[in-house]
Amino acid sequence: MGKKIVADIDKGRNPEIELPVRALSNIVYDKKTCTLTMGKNVAKRYFFNVAHTKKFMQTVEVAAISKNLVEEKKHASLRDVFYMAKRTIPNTKINVVDEQNESDKAIEDMELITGCARELLNINANKMGSVAGKVVIEDSGDTIDWSKLGSGGWSIPSNVENIKFEKAKAKYIIYMEKAAVWERLHEDKFWDNNNCIIMSSQGQTTRGIRRLLQRMQEELKLPVYVLTDFDPWGIYIYSVLKYGSISLAHITEKLAVGGCKFLGITADDILKYDLKRHFIKFEENDVKRLAQISKYDWFKDNKDFQRQFKMMKDFKAKAEIQAMSARGISFISEKYLPDKIKSQDWIE
Amino acid sequence: MGKKIVADIDKGRNPEIELPVRALSNIVYDKKTCTLTMGKNVAKRYFFNVAHTKKFMQTVEVAAISKNLVEEKKHASLRDVFYMAKRTIPNTKINVVDEQNESDKAIEDMELITGCARELLNINANKMGSVAGKVVIEDSGDTIDWSKLGSGGWSIPSNVENIKFEKAKAKYIIYMEKAAVWERLHEDKFWDNNNCIIMSSQGQTTRGIRRLLQRMQEELKLPVYVLTDFDPWGIYIYSVLKYGSISLAHITEKLAVGGCKFLGITADDILKYDLKRHFIKFEENDVKRLAQISKYDWFKDNKDFQRQFKMMKDFKAKAEIQAMSARGISFISEKYLPDKIKSQDWIE
Repeated sequence: MGKKIVADIDKGRNPEIELPVRALSNIVYDKKTCTLTMGKNVAKRYFFNVAHTKKFMQTVEVAAISKNLVEEKKHASLRDVFYMAKRTIPNTKINVVDEQNESDKAIEDMELITGCARELLNINANKMGSVAGKVVIEDSGDTIDWSKLGSGGWSIPSNVENIKFEKAKAKYIIYMEKAAVWERLHEDKFWDNNNCIIMSSQGQTTRGIRRLLQRMQEELKLPVYVLTDFDPWGIYIYSVLKYGSISLAHITEKLAVGGCKFLGITADDILKYDLKRHFIKFEENDVKRLAQISKYDWFKDNKDFQRQFKMMKDFKAKAEIQAMSARGISFISEKYLPDKIKSQDWIE
Repeated sequence: MGKKIVADIDKGRNPEIELPVRALSNIVYDKKTCTLTMGKNVAKRYFFNVAHTKKFMQTVEVAAISKNLVEEKKHASLRDVFYMAKRTIPNTKINVVDEQNESDKAIEDMELITGCARELLNINANKMGSVAGKVVIEDSGDTIDWSKLGSGGWSIPSNVENIKFEKAKAKYIIYMEKAAVWERLHEDKFWDNNNCIIMSSQGQTTRGIRRLLQRMQEELKLPVYVLTDFDPWGIYIYSVLKYGSISLAHITEKLAVGGCKFLGITADDILKYDLKRHFIKFEENDVKRLAQISKYDWFKDNKDFQRQFKMMKDFKAKAEIQAMSARGISFISEKYLPDKIKSQDWIE
């Protein structure tokens, strides 16, 4: 990119950067790959265009920062990059960036231009989550056995690009939205008794987790099952994992865990295990969110999910994974999950 | 507690539970130990008192749940305990608990009655945070070397009571509020180059982290330095670590990291390293929070902190740790922190 700009300058041309249009109108749901991806619309950004100049400069600035990071073999967070880019252009009162969303946008542009997830540009996302199971990895010169890390497990880094899988003995991966549920399964040695890998974040799924799940799915050939609360937010966690998100559509293929399946908890689980009395009444935002999700392209023709949405709507209520504890503290690891997996009782 | 209640019943007495009063009026700032603790006011809860009966029952129910957990050697989260306690009393329409705050209160009562942190009652707090350094621990039968866990580090469990420190080679501990800063220091092998331990959460400090810091301070005899943003919220993180919090005053001695020192970032750091241009303007809630914190018993006569508060108030602005990145990505690990530690430039 730098060389092309220099060549433009040398030849007296108006320096330009070409990049795909990042707008809702250029985001398509690809039915074949079942993911949200960018369309084919391309735009040009010119240095000599008053409406483009600042963005052009920001893009080049971020490109330079990323190049330095890669060369120095160091990683920075989005916030770090913002502070590194934030300086005043000499003899002016103009800052390269004033707000973090400007450098963030420039980083997303770099992802579009290079086709690399920002992790490969050495710009990291948030760090969150834990993992345990019979897997040995190599990372930063250390050999780490995920089955020998006590009650804590391995802390998942924000950037998992350089991890190497050395050994793995597991039949599947369960990813859950709640750290407390992970601790339950971990204390019960669920991964040992059921020959699997357990992984969690707390709330939102970070890019590091998505990428790690994707890599394990592809490189270890393991199915991924998603365990969330029974509410629109839980199903959205699954949705983002599987299909990608609108804001990150340009990088879907690097993050989406295409094969993952929704394990629960489902409306049927609630009826089967008599958990209706642990319902939490829908608030208005739950109703709205459910209506939104029901209309997503990838859900609207999916009978199994539409059935779940219908039941949730009729219940006017949601339920948490931890409601299982009402049946006994280890009910989830001794009965609920083994039965679900054995009877292949998931939705996709 | 159970035996005493049974004895009361056998003797035809009104069953009672004695427990310290948990109200602001009974919370004192102990200048000698420099912590918030419970006063000496004690109240009695009677079974045959319409105003007490339900709470009495809830306390006994939670005590029974905790006893089972301890006997089964299993741990539950607050949410789990809520679901375990939430059931309808046969032949009535009355639930033992309806909302989680009822079981939470009963758990706090159990802490008061037994003098044990709820972690010892096998009821866990949230799981959060990572740690790295030259420390070897034993946990759940595994031997874990915190210096050999790749880029992720060890994921700190919610309950650290059963961890044993086998070996430790470190001169101090730095605890920071931001996982991104931890990743910066970790990538730079700060703990290796400076012979220390680095530990972080993300935002609020969990009980697991507080207890782990406390145990390391006491058992490994290591000083703890706290690194936060320059804002009232960062200083409050330090305040809770060192002095305890009002809501957990009854358990302060189990959680407070009495000796910890505030490392930064301070107003002086900002001036010294010319970071004023990275200030973020105060919002109204920042102004309010700063005023509140300035008046805390343990800060109001502390000249060093009052000086910081005054400067922050005059700046009408806050600053983030990551602002250091403006001076170079590894400025924090190569210059800022080593200089601060070397010159003992902290506040306490």
